[in-house]
Amino acid sequence: MLIQLTEDCTHEELEKITALAEKAGFKTSKVDTHNASYIICSGKGEFDPRRIGTLKGVKDVHMVEDENKLVSRLWRVNDTELDLGDGAVISRDNLTVAMGPCSIESEEQVQKTVDFLLKNQVKIMRGGIFKPRSSPYSFRGMGIGGLEIFARHCREKGIKIVSEVMQVSQIEPMYDLVDIFQVGTRNAQNFNLLDALGKTDKPVLLKRGMSSTINEFLASAEYIFSSGNERIILCERGIRTFEKAYRNTLDLNAIPLLKEKSHLPVFCDPSHGVGVRRFVEPMALASVMAGADGLLMEIGEVPEKATSDAQQTLSFEEARQALFKMNKTFELKKELSFKFLSE
Amino acid sequence: MLIQLTEDCTHEELEKITALAEKAGFKTSKVDTHNASYIICSGKGEFDPRRIGTLKGVKDVHMVEDENKLVSRLWRVNDTELDLGDGAVISRDNLTVAMGPCSIESEEQVQKTVDFLLKNQVKIMRGGIFKPRSSPYSFRGMGIGGLEIFARHCREKGIKIVSEVMQVSQIEPMYDLVDIFQVGTRNAQNFNLLDALGKTDKPVLLKRGMSSTINEFLASAEYIFSSGNERIILCERGIRTFEKAYRNTLDLNAIPLLKEKSHLPVFCDPSHGVGVRRFVEPMALASVMAGADGLLMEIGEVPEKATSDAQQTLSFEEARQALFKMNKTFELKKELSFKFLSE
Amino acid sequence: MLIQLTEDCTHEELEKITALAEKAGFKTSKVDTHNASYIICSGKGEFDPRRIGTLKGVKDVHMVEDENKLVSRLWRVNDTELDLGDGAVISRDNLTVAMGPCSIESEEQVQKTVDFLLKNQVKIMRGGIFKPRSSPYSFRGMGIGGLEIFARHCREKGIKIVSEVMQVSQIEPMYDLVDIFQVGTRNAQNFNLLDALGKTDKPVLLKRGMSSTINEFLASAEYIFSSGNERIILCERGIRTFEKAYRNTLDLNAIPLLKEKSHLPVFCDPSHGVGVRRFVEPMALASVMAGADGLLMEIGEVPEKATSDAQQTLSFEEARQALFKMNKTFELKKELSFKFLSE
Amino acid sequence: MLIQLTEDCTHEELEKITALAEKAGFKTSKVDTHNASYIICSGKGEFDPRRIGTLKGVKDVHMVEDENKLVSRLWRVNDTELDLGDGAVISRDNLTVAMGPCSIESEEQVQKTVDFLLKNQVKIMRGGIFKPRSSPYSFRGMGIGGLEIFARHCREKGIKIVSEVMQVSQIEPMYDLVDIFQVGTRNAQNFNLLDALGKTDKPVLLKRGMSSTINEFLASAEYIFSSGNERIILCERGIRTFEKAYRNTLDLNAIPLLKEKSHLPVFCDPSHGVGVRRFVEPMALASVMAGADGLLMEIGEVPEKATSDAQQTLSFEEARQALFKMNKTFELKKELSFKFLSE
Repeated sequence: MLIQLTEDCTHEELEKITALAEKAGFKTSKVDTHNASYIICSGKGEFDPRRIGTLKGVKDVHMVEDENKLVSRLWRVNDTELDLGDGAVISRDNLTVAMGPCSIESEEQVQKTVDFLLKNQVKIMRGGIFKPRSSPYSFRGMGIGGLEIFARHCREKGIKIVSEVMQVSQIEPMYDLVDIFQVGTRNAQNFNLLDALGKTDKPVLLKRGMSSTINEFLASAEYIFSSGNERIILCERGIRTFEKAYRNTLDLNAIPLLKEKSHLPVFCDPSHGVGVRRFVEPMALASVMAGADGLLMEIGEVPEKATSDAQQTLSFEEARQALFKMNKTFELKKELSFKFLSE
Repeated sequence: MLIQLTEDCTHEELEKITALAEKAGFKTSKVDTHNASYIICSGKGEFDPRRIGTLKGVKDVHMVEDENKLVSRLWRVNDTELDLGDGAVISRDNLTVAMGPCSIESEEQVQKTVDFLLKNQVKIMRGGIFKPRSSPYSFRGMGIGGLEIFARHCREKGIKIVSEVMQVSQIEPMYDLVDIFQVGTRNAQNFNLLDALGKTDKPVLLKRGMSSTINEFLASAEYIFSSGNERIILCERGIRTFEKAYRNTLDLNAIPLLKEKSHLPVFCDPSHGVGVRRFVEPMALASVMAGADGLLMEIGEVPEKATSDAQQTLSFEEARQALFKMNKTFELKKELSFKFLSE
Repeated sequence: MLIQLTEDCTHEELEKITALAEKAGFKTSKVDTHNASYIICSGKGEFDPRRIGTLKGVKDVHMVEDENKLVSRLWRVNDTELDLGDGAVISRDNLTVAMGPCSIESEEQVQKTVDFLLKNQVKIMRGGIFKPRSSPYSFRGMGIGGLEIFARHCREKGIKIVSEVMQVSQIEPMYDLVDIFQVGTRNAQNFNLLDALGKTDKPVLLKRGMSSTINEFLASAEYIFSSGNERIILCERGIRTFEKAYRNTLDLNAIPLLKEKSHLPVFCDPSHGVGVRRFVEPMALASVMAGADGLLMEIGEVPEKATSDAQQTLSFEEARQALFKMNKTFELKKELSFKFLSE
Repeated sequence: MLIQLTEDCTHEELEKITALAEKAGFKTSKVDTHNASYIICSGKGEFDPRRIGTLKGVKDVHMVEDENKLVSRLWRVNDTELDLGDGAVISRDNLTVAMGPCSIESEEQVQKTVDFLLKNQVKIMRGGIFKPRSSPYSFRGMGIGGLEIFARHCREKGIKIVSEVMQVSQIEPMYDLVDIFQVGTRNAQNFNLLDALGKTDKPVLLKRGMSSTINEFLASAEYIFSSGNERIILCERGIRTFEKAYRNTLDLNAIPLLKEKSHLPVFCDPSHGVGVRRFVEPMALASVMAGADGLLMEIGEVPEKATSDAQQTLSFEEARQALFKMNKTFELKKELSFKFLSE
């Protein structure tokens, strides 16, 4: 059960509601987000929701059987929309694309990427400044200095920034320089990081852990939401399976399922998902048809020269072609969703 | 290396070619299919292909590094096309759809399905008469009797039939009654069955084993081809992973990879792949965008009453909607593949 | 529910029992094995087992909730024992070892292996004559001719034979020449083969499918049992996971679980399981401690020269050392199972 | 290549060595641990190690092809031993056991566990105070307060403490209260945490990520080592596979492989590995036979009452029996490793 509280719910009203819920056998957790306050009732309590619905301080009561209640579709009429400003709105009604290099490497690289994005109406740029690398001896990113260059060029032109945060102590220095915090697959169950991101008011793009089940993925989102931040994007990026012909196994099955289970927008990262340049475009188009609300893609002027992920990075020209096709595909997808054939 | 022989290659010429290849360090296998004769040279031999190319009896010599040589794209200019008659042509230029129940259950069911297919321009009907069931106490299919009913109704109307064969002894009684033999996921490495199907001249739709790698999948196709039958369709149908939110994990990454590695047509079975009715349509559309040349889908008048796979079977009305959308998606896919934007 | 019938149960008695069970809501299947007759009642029926227990023709009634009823431990007081003659008894009370080459290759090889086994008190020899190979161009075994040589040398010395059968048509020619039919991992769900082996009276060593769950593995055994053959050995041989550092991931967790769920003996194949020669011995010892009743191991005089599986084959000397250690480990295991420390 | 420096290596000598290595085509990283200083040369350089070996400042040069050089066995003659004091020495020569509850819950619980450990000669106690829980609404541990109680009771009696650290900011407050920092499976690739633990001088028990390959696991250890801390224990704890009959799939194959590839001690956690109480003991015994140097096990006076992991926790009596058997098994393992049978 999920109880939404009124904005003016008093401390006494809250205590009364909590007491009633616990008496009915629930374990309660109070959640305050930037938008609203809730009481999450877990476990199996038994009583009449109408009795609680009429209490003072209660705005609404929802019977949500799902384990991950706040991110569940079962209580929210409207899907979550995220307005980043400058016309960048993430929602289920339009296709959002974020493109950029794996790692920020130089001012020139940022400048050229921004130019490309502007010319092609792409509103969000991705780029890593802290890089999780499997070997400690690999390039680990330019750090905050790189982000400052990144932000300077993007801010000027109204391009929004998504960049990966790897630990709690990076949140504060990154805060003013990014528009979306990205949580990488290796940190998908770094609960302290999720908690801390829940305290911010910036959108969080949460990647699926490489061996996370759908339920675990949603639980990670629930961590962020229940710590206070409702602005979350789910991102499928490939899972680990026995198959080694691709870098990961991009799991498009997850997209319609996540959209059914949650009100959050669902993105897809075909670059990491399949990990092979010439399969990125077909997988991107397939993601759109499966229902993805957004795409995260690695691009570069000369992909072969990238310090990381070169083999899965599209050239600017490839990206331009892919964009055109992705938009066409999204248009068709939208059209088909309204079409109901008569016999 | 793969040596194509001329049609009139004599025994002596053959011996000469073979001797030369073995002297060069190759292990040779002679392959005779319904179309042509080949010598497959495995292992690492070293010599000048031009020397063999000029021998009498040799039509062409191809350097094919792939392990699975006959099914490889590396030597075939044209992709494999399968003409089943009555206008049913499987190729990379059009979208083939095969629909029908999981199991053939009654004459009435066959009749109604055939009517649905005719009305909706679907040219192939699927339906199982031998059912691989995980429990020995489950319904195991109507057997040949069911296939006779199935065939009678389809033949009359020009609908082609695809049905699963589970063992060598079933090939002969099924032969006259099917247009495509289907090999199920549990038999994907039943090498004796593959060998025996290689001796027939009917097309074989080979499903990927639920834990087959792409290479193993192609090796299974190579078994059929090298036993004599070039008419093969590859079919992705979901792999086994840690995720249990869907029946299997439909692996769309396989589609562009298989189309790149092999000249064979590549189908997709979203019904088994995701295994949840309301996700079958989005996954079907996604498969088309990923490049599938055909789709295999379970449909039924009243899915809930099916003896098997009810939860993944589309109703006739759902199938009709899905067909319309799949065709629209394929049209767009085709259009986009010709589009090259100028700057 | 599982109903054991008396040996002299008449047709009329049977009909009465069946009718009563079906009236109570069960789906019934009659099973006749070489040992006894049963009625398997699936689904959810509801009634008092005592009512059926008193009917004529009924020997015993067992409430077996497990899906795979005949192989379940829930109704059998005693674990299955298989007496192969010449002192080779497979049971939970002693450690059975079967050793031999991957493939039978020559008379000399068989002879030397038999000599080694005799000298080291190993009573069963393994060896393949039909080889499932991922490439159609690999050596596929000597066939029945090889088995004849194999059998001639073993019969003389009282060594028992286990060899893989790959299809139904091989059962008959192999029947007189083997003591145990082996079903390989790729045929673990080849239901026709399982059915046919259920009609024989020879023990069947059933390997776990490389992606079979424990329940599917037991269902495959249930196929054999319900077709008439109670003499089954389960064999864990490694599953397919994301880890590629070993050939397969030998899953020792399966051993205590299978022994708890089933009355059948449980073997382990560390050679295929881990697939790396120097890890075969530690994994064999670990299997024994996990509770394995028997071990299947690949050995050869000069492993490097084997036509298949060379990298996982122990030399005779390594095998001798391993045997000594396995026996010591089994002794300790047995001793510890009787030890109950007082405070 | 791995270059060990002398203790008195001067800055100029260092520069000379580095310059030579880079000129030869290597990428160099300087590593200073609490024990020694190294230069790690990655990539493919080509030159004569003897030339560098004679330079001033160089203690030794090792050709280590492994990607993870510092944790590799290829350069270390002696396996890593960790002396925790009070007779608790972790090494390949004796079996180390750490037992305790999943979560520290009360003073009484700690006291009773300490009493049990003392009586049974167990020298290390495990217990979580920060708990990674899949749901944000579950009990997340007593925090530092709990650790203070935990430490007070253990310090008095000479029992050593291992407890999980989940984020960088917890290292400092935990430092004085633990003897071994544990890194959990969800943080196995939390590289910032690994780096920070590399700066401490306390031993780190690193659990394998639930989908980490062996190479990734070793790379995580390399992170800690290359940040300065050589005192690392590797711990296998089960991987994620398709099989859901156990909580995880304890992968014993990893044990002999890790011991071959690395000089670090290798532990095993059968409690999380198989996750079912009655299979914990057989899997513990199997781990010992596979070569585990230590075991981590969950125990409790009344397991059913534990706030977490109740279903995999042994009672004190079960733990006592298991200990006896584990020690006996280890004795045999050791005896067998010295035994070389003559013909």
